[in-house]
Amino acid sequence: MKIAVLPGDGIGPEIVAEAVKVLEALNLGLEMETAPVGGAGYEAAGHPLPPATLKLAQEADAILFGAVGDWKYDTLDRPLRPEQAILGLRKALGLFANFRPAICYKELTHASSLKPELVAGLDILIIRELTGDIYFGQPRGRRVAPDGHFPGAEEAFDTMRYTRPEIERIAHVAFQAAQKRSKRVTSVDKANVLETFQLWKDVVSEVAKQYPDVALDHMYVDNAAMQLVKEPKRFDVVVTGNMFGDILSDEASMLTGSIGMLPSASLNDKKQGLYEPSHGSAPDIAGKGIANPLATILSAAMMLRFSLNQEAAAQKIEAAVQKVLAQGLRTADIYSEGTTKVSTAQMGDAVVKAL
Amino acid sequence: MKIAVLPGDGIGPEIVAEAVKVLEALNLGLEMETAPVGGAGYEAAGHPLPPATLKLAQEADAILFGAVGDWKYDTLDRPLRPEQAILGLRKALGLFANFRPAICYKELTHASSLKPELVAGLDILIIRELTGDIYFGQPRGRRVAPDGHFPGAEEAFDTMRYTRPEIERIAHVAFQAAQKRSKRVTSVDKANVLETFQLWKDVVSEVAKQYPDVALDHMYVDNAAMQLVKEPKRFDVVVTGNMFGDILSDEASMLTGSIGMLPSASLNDKKQGLYEPSHGSAPDIAGKGIANPLATILSAAMMLRFSLNQEAAAQKIEAAVQKVLAQGLRTADIYSEGTTKVSTAQMGDAVVKAL
Ligand SMILES: CC(C)[C@H](C(=O)O)[C@@H](O)C(=O)O
Ligand SMILES: CC(C)[C@H](C(=O)O)[C@@H](O)C(=O)O
Repeated sequence: MKIAVLPGDGIGPEIVAEAVKVLEALNLGLEMETAPVGGAGYEAAGHPLPPATLKLAQEADAILFGAVGDWKYDTLDRPLRPEQAILGLRKALGLFANFRPAICYKELTHASSLKPELVAGLDILIIRELTGDIYFGQPRGRRVAPDGHFPGAEEAFDTMRYTRPEIERIAHVAFQAAQKRSKRVTSVDKANVLETFQLWKDVVSEVAKQYPDVALDHMYVDNAAMQLVKEPKRFDVVVTGNMFGDILSDEASMLTGSIGMLPSASLNDKKQGLYEPSHGSAPDIAGKGIANPLATILSAAMMLRFSLNQEAAAQKIEAAVQKVLAQGLRTADIYSEGTTKVSTAQMGDAVVKAL
Repeated sequence: MKIAVLPGDGIGPEIVAEAVKVLEALNLGLEMETAPVGGAGYEAAGHPLPPATLKLAQEADAILFGAVGDWKYDTLDRPLRPEQAILGLRKALGLFANFRPAICYKELTHASSLKPELVAGLDILIIRELTGDIYFGQPRGRRVAPDGHFPGAEEAFDTMRYTRPEIERIAHVAFQAAQKRSKRVTSVDKANVLETFQLWKDVVSEVAKQYPDVALDHMYVDNAAMQLVKEPKRFDVVVTGNMFGDILSDEASMLTGSIGMLPSASLNDKKQGLYEPSHGSAPDIAGKGIANPLATILSAAMMLRFSLNQEAAAQKIEAAVQKVLAQGLRTADIYSEGTTKVSTAQMGDAVVKAL
């Protein structure tokens, strides 16, 4: 089992090191190889996704990814900016199914902006389509406006697109995930305005017929953004497109108050996957040894479960994380009075010990 | 001064009746004419925006709008559905500047999902571009996919577009609004992925140079969705496109916990405007006399201010609303122990009395 380890920028290397530590302690005989990506890829090879890094990722069973991005790359041309590495990997590997859990750990309920009773026990799984929609749709670019309010003016444009089979496959992923949970799926669309999401709604409804044990409801994206704030526990599995999923999955993560705890997985149809924390590269705290490695460690657990067929090892990691939380160990981002503040490496060590 | 009164569906007629009551009590010599819109337009004339209603709206100085929509119209073809009336009015009148305040009234702080210290005193103004973006961009439709992941498959698509002058005019609106407030603007984009929003970001930055007294920052839409939950008071004026504005303005409204209090205004370059509550038509409580008319009454105040040049009258209404809140009067949606529950009409009467 071969794993491409892509630490990236900012706190990426620190948090990935702890996840690697945990994986090694499990003695699963994983073959891990590291390569630069994002700003680090640009520094090393002039491109955020150097060909050698892409090749390593393509040949691996799974990718353990840290985070990319730093202010110092903000002035580069768009194709050279760190985030292009993520988009490039998603596209090259066809990673269409993004799993974004938003879980509120009972020890961390107080960290949420929301009143405790609204988030205690929260456990939402957002399933975001990741290779279609307006993220990749052609044509796109700049031009002279051919019509519209200001014909002749400078214009920029993008194309939102979904085909029936793209919607079908992500709908199947969502319904199958729901079958293992509380058997409820909320499909989020904007069918009242967008042709793309009218098709989305139609196709999800059709696929639903193959899952009579799962209850489906439809919600407009603006309403979903509201209901997440008002009553987040009404949601279980949420499935939506790439753009809406980007916004709603981040909103949902933040509801928990502890985005430093939330992993993610992005899978293709061969169960190859990219695993990364839901949070970003946090360049402001990079190198200080204070970042929370738990989201990355939990991403490694998802990797064992989804791509490497190692359910037992995945559960071991998850139980170990629960244990260190119960022991009161906290990195700075989730620290509160009465708990013990630890560094990135101390947290990784504690998880290893708790395995 | 001529006002088109379009009550619409659900609770629309009830809440608009109270706003009309308040306007009449001010004795401003307003000429008000009522016409059906939304589902009511469909019932009366076979179209959500009957030609006579549109004509009335076009000839008026301002439109006082209730709300549209009811489940019973969900099965109609899209062009006949109630919400097409709103889209049609925005387009026909060129109502490009949507003002969506998210204010947390001190008496209602407890109603928010968020912890009181995070929302007490919250006062955000979201300025949403309302006639461009993917809402109206052509081409759009269904077709056989010409390329992409599944060439040949059934596909639906929409076009996101913005021209430079469209972005310029909404940016001016935002900077000028900020000059009257705390002189801060956050422009929300997705320039890291979308060509349209790279142009957006560039143009907003250029326009900012004409407002050296206003501080501008840029934020990605996914991050904005998070920061609204994490630290809403960091925002003052937020400016964004039609699609992102739809999502973020609803998210922000819900943060206050009292969406029944929030007005909105949609203006064109002649200061003609459509004024409506931020909430919907709530068909489940229609006809019961329990809906909160205050968002509509406050929309009438915005109408006096923005379209009718009656600042003093606008302030009178706003002060009266503050007064009834201070008196402890509450409709069911904002009721809490120790306050006095009143009906829709009683609330309208109380505002009139407090004028
Ligand atoms: C960095 C960016 C391109 C990316 C996205 O928008 O998909 C990020 O926000 C994410 O959600 O992984
Ligand atoms: C009804 C719908 C078309 C509309 C929109 O998306 O603009 C509504 O959500 C709004 O925000 O006014």
